[in-house]
Amino acid sequence: MHWTHTRVRYGETDQMGVVYHANYLVYFELGRTELIRELGFPYAKFEEDGIRLPVVSTALRFYSAARYDDEIAVGTRLTEVTAVRVRFDYEVRCDGTLLATGHTVLACVGPKGRPRRFPATIRERLEKHVQ
Amino acid sequence: MHWTHTRVRYGETDQMGVVYHANYLVYFELGRTELIRELGFPYAKFEEDGIRLPVVSTALRFYSAARYDDEIAVGTRLTEVTAVRVRFDYEVRCDGTLLATGHTVLACVGPKGRPRRFPATIRERLEKHVQ
Amino acid sequence: MHWTHTRVRYGETDQMGVVYHANYLVYFELGRTELIRELGFPYAKFEEDGIRLPVVSTALRFYSAARYDDEIAVGTRLTEVTAVRVRFDYEVRCDGTLLATGHTVLACVGPKGRPRRFPATIRERLEKHVQ
Amino acid sequence: MHWTHTRVRYGETDQMGVVYHANYLVYFELGRTELIRELGFPYAKFEEDGIRLPVVSTALRFYSAARYDDEIAVGTRLTEVTAVRVRFDYEVRCDGTLLATGHTVLACVGPKGRPRRFPATIRERLEKHVQ
Repeated sequence: MHWTHTRVRYGETDQMGVVYHANYLVYFELGRTELIRELGFPYAKFEEDGIRLPVVSTALRFYSAARYDDEIAVGTRLTEVTAVRVRFDYEVRCDGTLLATGHTVLACVGPKGRPRRFPATIRERLEKHVQ
Repeated sequence: MHWTHTRVRYGETDQMGVVYHANYLVYFELGRTELIRELGFPYAKFEEDGIRLPVVSTALRFYSAARYDDEIAVGTRLTEVTAVRVRFDYEVRCDGTLLATGHTVLACVGPKGRPRRFPATIRERLEKHVQ
Repeated sequence: MHWTHTRVRYGETDQMGVVYHANYLVYFELGRTELIRELGFPYAKFEEDGIRLPVVSTALRFYSAARYDDEIAVGTRLTEVTAVRVRFDYEVRCDGTLLATGHTVLACVGPKGRPRRFPATIRERLEKHVQ
Repeated sequence: MHWTHTRVRYGETDQMGVVYHANYLVYFELGRTELIRELGFPYAKFEEDGIRLPVVSTALRFYSAARYDDEIAVGTRLTEVTAVRVRFDYEVRCDGTLLATGHTVLACVGPKGRPRRFPATIRERLEKHVQ
């Protein structure tokens, strides 16, 4: 599990006084951005190589609420790699308390959005880090 | 199926030139807000009655991308009501093309976030509209 | 003054229970999008013509707060056109109450972000609508 | 000048491939949140004390664009304190390049949004840090 830390921003809360649920997808993205940076390819590099990774499916489950200025931890694992897709699983915690879990499946597509295979070198490196 | 229409805002796009995936949760919310308004209880009323409906789980699947200024249609159905939860299913379309599907499960909680049962009158009215 | 109407979304509120201030820039954009659509050139057309209109400066003043599900009205006027810039002024109201005022200045740039002049036909049409 | 660092998130970009302008107000907020935390009162404390600080006016000027994953620096100065208001000035930079400047004026209000004076101890401490 790779951990990234961030603080809840004011604009991320809603009138219930807690983080608006859609923002957890943003936290998931923070997590996978930092994970793949650590694996040696910042996401900006992917786009330079003509690869984009749109989210094709996702699911989230919410257990407890985060509040403004809370420091939250996003745990990310690379859980599956195929020729054309990659899956990440996440958990978000605050002081140890579980806030949310979820996953995202991303497809490998070219600059115009057409599905394509991962280049072999990228796929191999990703596969090494599947947990 | 209840349909709500909205246009894609500039800030809802990302550098892929399409709607950022997290915004579909916002579109889902537009859909259920309009559906429950039509059922006779605007969501603001719920909160006045001391009821809040946080999202406790959700899943989304993306099929095609929407672009800036596209007029999109959010189809919403109330698909399940229990003593303490309600589920909505959605599909988002643009000119007939399916963009995304998904669902959200919302829990009935009191003003401090404690789980509670729906008042009988609300539950009965919701149940009548389950599809 | 051209008027556009929208409802406050849940995710646009913050923990003060009112619209988060940055969202007024989004409302301003809704207003100018609808105004220029009415003038005969939807903004998407501009981008097809290789013209982009990034915001280069803005100012806002807040008078009163909008709440979730409020129906707000965004009043927009085109107030200045030069060879390379255009200015819009705005007011946002709810049931007649003034919520915010402001303006944005947008620059005409090419696809790579280089400053350029408005094509003569566009500039002429814009100038006719300066108030 | 107090400096806070953050990375541009994917959802903060728009289809021009750069940060959507409204997000600079979010960056400004990051800056002042960290500045006042360093002055000894995290903003969450203010709210516990029954003080809220809504933005009552702001202005921004944009010079250059930030892109996804750029590490940006938000410089914040406390520039004015009165009995009922406080002003912060900002500059946002990336690798030394100036991206944007601006300011926000915040009003001191009570829990129901009524204007009130800063408690003397808070005002004194703020005044010491005016630059």
